[in-house]
Amino acid sequence: MISYNPKDWITFIFRFHRSDTVRRLFPMIVLISLYSAGIAYLELEIWQLSAKSYVRNISVMHTLLGFVISFLLVFRTNTAYERWWEGRRLWGTLVNNSRNLAMKLAALLHAEAEERDFFRAMIPAYAAALQRHLRSEETRIELFDKLPAGVQQKMDLEKHIPNQIAALLYNRVLLLAEQGKLKAEHLFFLNLELQSFTEVCGACERIKNTPIPYSYSVFIKKFIFFYIMTLPFGYVFSLGYYVIPIVAFIFYVLASLEIIAEEIEEPFGADENDLPLGMISRNIQMHIGELI
Amino acid sequence: MISYNPKDWITFIFRFHRSDTVRRLFPMIVLISLYSAGIAYLELEIWQLSAKSYVRNISVMHTLLGFVISFLLVFRTNTAYERWWEGRRLWGTLVNNSRNLAMKLAALLHAEAEERDFFRAMIPAYAAALQRHLRSEETRIELFDKLPAGVQQKMDLEKHIPNQIAALLYNRVLLLAEQGKLKAEHLFFLNLELQSFTEVCGACERIKNTPIPYSYSVFIKKFIFFYIMTLPFGYVFSLGYYVIPIVAFIFYVLASLEIIAEEIEEPFGADENDLPLGMISRNIQMHIGELI
Amino acid sequence: MISYNPKDWITFIFRFHRSDTVRRLFPMIVLISLYSAGIAYLELEIWQLSAKSYVRNISVMHTLLGFVISFLLVFRTNTAYERWWEGRRLWGTLVNNSRNLAMKLAALLHAEAEERDFFRAMIPAYAAALQRHLRSEETRIELFDKLPAGVQQKMDLEKHIPNQIAALLYNRVLLLAEQGKLKAEHLFFLNLELQSFTEVCGACERIKNTPIPYSYSVFIKKFIFFYIMTLPFGYVFSLGYYVIPIVAFIFYVLASLEIIAEEIEEPFGADENDLPLGMISRNIQMHIGELI
Amino acid sequence: MISYNPKDWITFIFRFHRSDTVRRLFPMIVLISLYSAGIAYLELEIWQLSAKSYVRNISVMHTLLGFVISFLLVFRTNTAYERWWEGRRLWGTLVNNSRNLAMKLAALLHAEAEERDFFRAMIPAYAAALQRHLRSEETRIELFDKLPAGVQQKMDLEKHIPNQIAALLYNRVLLLAEQGKLKAEHLFFLNLELQSFTEVCGACERIKNTPIPYSYSVFIKKFIFFYIMTLPFGYVFSLGYYVIPIVAFIFYVLASLEIIAEEIEEPFGADENDLPLGMISRNIQMHIGELI
Amino acid sequence: MISYNPKDWITFIFRFHRSDTVRRLFPMIVLISLYSAGIAYLELEIWQLSAKSYVRNISVMHTLLGFVISFLLVFRTNTAYERWWEGRRLWGTLVNNSRNLAMKLAALLHAEAEERDFFRAMIPAYAAALQRHLRSEETRIELFDKLPAGVQQKMDLEKHIPNQIAALLYNRVLLLAEQGKLKAEHLFFLNLELQSFTEVCGACERIKNTPIPYSYSVFIKKFIFFYIMTLPFGYVFSLGYYVIPIVAFIFYVLASLEIIAEEIEEPFGADENDLPLGMISRNIQMHIGELI
Repeated sequence: MISYNPKDWITFIFRFHRSDTVRRLFPMIVLISLYSAGIAYLELEIWQLSAKSYVRNISVMHTLLGFVISFLLVFRTNTAYERWWEGRRLWGTLVNNSRNLAMKLAALLHAEAEERDFFRAMIPAYAAALQRHLRSEETRIELFDKLPAGVQQKMDLEKHIPNQIAALLYNRVLLLAEQGKLKAEHLFFLNLELQSFTEVCGACERIKNTPIPYSYSVFIKKFIFFYIMTLPFGYVFSLGYYVIPIVAFIFYVLASLEIIAEEIEEPFGADENDLPLGMISRNIQMHIGELI
Repeated sequence: MISYNPKDWITFIFRFHRSDTVRRLFPMIVLISLYSAGIAYLELEIWQLSAKSYVRNISVMHTLLGFVISFLLVFRTNTAYERWWEGRRLWGTLVNNSRNLAMKLAALLHAEAEERDFFRAMIPAYAAALQRHLRSEETRIELFDKLPAGVQQKMDLEKHIPNQIAALLYNRVLLLAEQGKLKAEHLFFLNLELQSFTEVCGACERIKNTPIPYSYSVFIKKFIFFYIMTLPFGYVFSLGYYVIPIVAFIFYVLASLEIIAEEIEEPFGADENDLPLGMISRNIQMHIGELI
Repeated sequence: MISYNPKDWITFIFRFHRSDTVRRLFPMIVLISLYSAGIAYLELEIWQLSAKSYVRNISVMHTLLGFVISFLLVFRTNTAYERWWEGRRLWGTLVNNSRNLAMKLAALLHAEAEERDFFRAMIPAYAAALQRHLRSEETRIELFDKLPAGVQQKMDLEKHIPNQIAALLYNRVLLLAEQGKLKAEHLFFLNLELQSFTEVCGACERIKNTPIPYSYSVFIKKFIFFYIMTLPFGYVFSLGYYVIPIVAFIFYVLASLEIIAEEIEEPFGADENDLPLGMISRNIQMHIGELI
Repeated sequence: MISYNPKDWITFIFRFHRSDTVRRLFPMIVLISLYSAGIAYLELEIWQLSAKSYVRNISVMHTLLGFVISFLLVFRTNTAYERWWEGRRLWGTLVNNSRNLAMKLAALLHAEAEERDFFRAMIPAYAAALQRHLRSEETRIELFDKLPAGVQQKMDLEKHIPNQIAALLYNRVLLLAEQGKLKAEHLFFLNLELQSFTEVCGACERIKNTPIPYSYSVFIKKFIFFYIMTLPFGYVFSLGYYVIPIVAFIFYVLASLEIIAEEIEEPFGADENDLPLGMISRNIQMHIGELI
Repeated sequence: MISYNPKDWITFIFRFHRSDTVRRLFPMIVLISLYSAGIAYLELEIWQLSAKSYVRNISVMHTLLGFVISFLLVFRTNTAYERWWEGRRLWGTLVNNSRNLAMKLAALLHAEAEERDFFRAMIPAYAAALQRHLRSEETRIELFDKLPAGVQQKMDLEKHIPNQIAALLYNRVLLLAEQGKLKAEHLFFLNLELQSFTEVCGACERIKNTPIPYSYSVFIKKFIFFYIMTLPFGYVFSLGYYVIPIVAFIFYVLASLEIIAEEIEEPFGADENDLPLGMISRNIQMHIGELI
């Protein structure tokens, strides 16, 4: 994720950041411009269509469908943003639950240094493992370096790592209850936090594995394509060669919305607009270290 | 569900997938084109209506109602998508609760291999049975093959299968509590997970059995039909025979939105855009096997 | 509620179901057509207004306000649909909680046939009583026929029936706890289900008793009325006598949206689009019978 | 709140209720009409601007900004309605929790008549006190008349009354637990209901004390004002003196939406559209009396 | 936050408050006016473009993109408002939980004056510390003045203060449980309130640290800029020098929406529209003082 000051308009307008859609769409914008230029040349110089030609009125279609395409792009933008924001909220829940679990365990186990070491290592390990899991990176073995050897050997890096960490947390808490270091009532006191790790993980997997329905994705792209491709025909009559920058700008606007939506609808990757999972993980580690 | 790479524009635009609305609407598009051609022929060649004819201005109605039809299609798209996404979320909840229940039971029953066998078979069986229930497929008896004979005989395949599995889970947990293998406090620790199976099932049945109100479904279809049928009359004057592809394209856009919405508003079927219930069920089975 | 196949376009377009807005608005559509014909006759034949007349441009107002009226109708449609869907969700919750309560009690009370009889009768009685309560029908005494005589006599049909049933459920559960047939911990295990009956009832009463604010209802109807009444004046110039079907069609579209919204915003009645409370109640009865 | 039959169109259209925006905006509508008449007189009679004058095209601005103003009013309408509906939902929660608490306590304390008297008086007192608190009315001392003298003396009418009632409820419940009339487990059984009184109160205070951000309120009003004030300039050319009723009608539409939103965004007052807090309070009193 | 009477239109329209966007955009409005004047001068006086020039029709682009820019600004407004309102709701939760926790502890610890002193100081300290934390102000040591010396010394002002206060609350509650002043069941009775402090804090941090995705922020600003910059070219033909105030007004409208959204999307600062955190904190302190 890029940190930025939203009030700095000048920079926004004149700097072309690496993830700026102007840069990413640049080749397409050039192609569309050449295409528009070609259509304009044909209509104005070669065919010399008269102003009475029916072709001029093709633009009524663009006006009529202007609503629909705008609505569709808004639908796309809204759903993509909601997924992005839900992803962010899920990681916020992870932060909250990690903190609450650490505080509760610190208060319950104030005399058991060894147990607290275990949880101090394992709670932040969940966030780190979830991050790798969502980005499909390999989980590095060092992640578990600081853990007692017993734990390290139990991990099977081929299987679902976050699940294994959650299971270890459950096991340890129930072991403490069996040993009488925690009371049965405390189980319940810790229940929501323990549960929520797996809920966050499942919800992140859901967002990651379920893009918007295939048909919408196809339909929106086809629609933008034909809308833009037919745009120069009618507008050459009223705009002459000015049709070139204007079609290019309209393409830039419509395609930008689609491209940004594509990027943020899966917010766990390493794209520029994706969520700062690494930073959140490190924060969890730092705060848990302070709390338990 | 179709897996796809949302960033691959070329494929989206030029390939016509089996579930693509272009293919599914093709016969209708041909019919609408012939109809428009007929109207154009009548107006231009037979009746030779003058450009002063009032018929030309019928298009003001289409502009005025352009807003309303766009809004309606957006309403349709939003509600259909929300139902689809709610369905996905429900199955995500099923995944989370299956995992959490398995982890908790594994930690509580680490010494009871037989009990764990029971839950290892029954928890994923719920998802599999729910899938069949929602698709109204017959539940195959093999589903319960691995269970102890006692359980198998108790199932009545004529009745509501998911309810029976949930009831078996409740019974087993409470039996363990009676036998002292679980404490009374543990009941409460397991409560939310046990409850949520039935909640997911009920919510999926709600989505499946309640399409949007009949009146909206009728009204939107009637509206699209009359809108498209009257479209050529006015536009022939400004578009000539170009009216044919343009009306066809507008029809394609409006009808596609309605057709996609119809498909995804009941997301548990086996349509191309429906949710991958089979895959989710198999994932639950795999992960539960690792956890308990 | 009408069961229908949303993919059957032909039926939708050409059949005029009893609840179809075309049929219900028919008298008004005729009146509006006559009115438009009158205006057209006056302007074209009697006053013979020239095309330069300012009256012609009254239609700019309709274009300008076209947005606003569309937005308002969408707002109306969205809020009405949300209320309808919330009502459906509440009854879904009732289904889920009835099932969960039955399963839990069946597992807890497997040896107490009499108690299970009580709950097998009372749990579905709640849904049936709520249905009658929401439709303001009299609760038939037979509803409680199968209950032990003691319960039957306690019901006061003049008072709030669902509350009395919920209170009976609470009393029985707490009596079982006092008698030692349930443990104190089990109270908590059953708490959410017991509570939720009253929550569903209260929420349904809220939807039923609170239509959208009076001012919106007035304003939207006044707005549609004046919009349609002034529509012919300007459009006669560009449409001639075609203004008659066109104004009628625009009226049909706008009024349909308002009429459907009126119908579904109170979803517990017996209108064609209302929720199938009877069917849901019967389903609860059937499934509870299987479970306890 | 006004009770009304939403299906009675005739009354809605031709009756001008006291809270109707037509009546409330009437003086402004007259002023705007005079202003438009003045502009029309100046342009048509005094300056006699030719049809070629640039002034005629000022209306392009109104078309272009027509979208934005519509969107803003929809945003305003949506947020105001959501606050109104959230307020209604909160009072619905109060109803539900009062009922559930009464039922639970009635079942737990069936032998303690005195305790039940206390709760029969105090639970509905919360709703009544909250109503007065939200309307900033003085709490009448009679409200607490029926309570045992001890309670009455403890109330400090200068302080936050609902908080004091909630605290009394907590104290009594915990006293009963200390006295052994309730078990420790029952505390938990009653927890959600006890908590929710304060949650409803806090949420109502939030809605009451937080209008939408000042900048939006200013901006929307300024925008409507300038939009309407500049409207006659351009439209005189196409509408002549018809500009007077048309500008007045457009003003009526835009200002109505803002005025209704202002009224319902704070739904706890005594405006015509506000929530029927008094009726809900009385209902709570009646039902609690039946239940405990 | 500014307190205001939303029904006082005159003040809103004619007073230019310090935070009014008219004042804040004034320099830009002047620049845009000069720019428009320059374009108008060039086109009308220097180049003397004929009315047939293609440049005149550049405005078709502005009409076509008018939808998209309106939609985008509405998307921006909605998301910013939702964040602002979520922030307000979070602080409302803080109020509710502080009150509920105080009431519960007051009822549980009515005999322990010292313990109640501790919580009377610490509960409001959380809100005060969270306010400073969110505004990145230094936490003043006086905040902890009234606390027993032991607590004061434990605070490390370099670390996350709200976390430390939450941990102190947990520790004290669990210490009371160990000492037998609270029962194990009471832990659970207090659990939700204790948890929620950290949840509110985490959610506020999430809103504060996650602006909307960088790409949207860039894209909207670039889009407004180019939209406004190209606006005079086409409109000079139909508006002459009137293009100057009109372009300025359109700029004012579009930029105001973006500027207000920027301000309220991070609602915890000290901007005029930001939430009144200080007032809420003081209210918590006052009410907690009354309750415990």
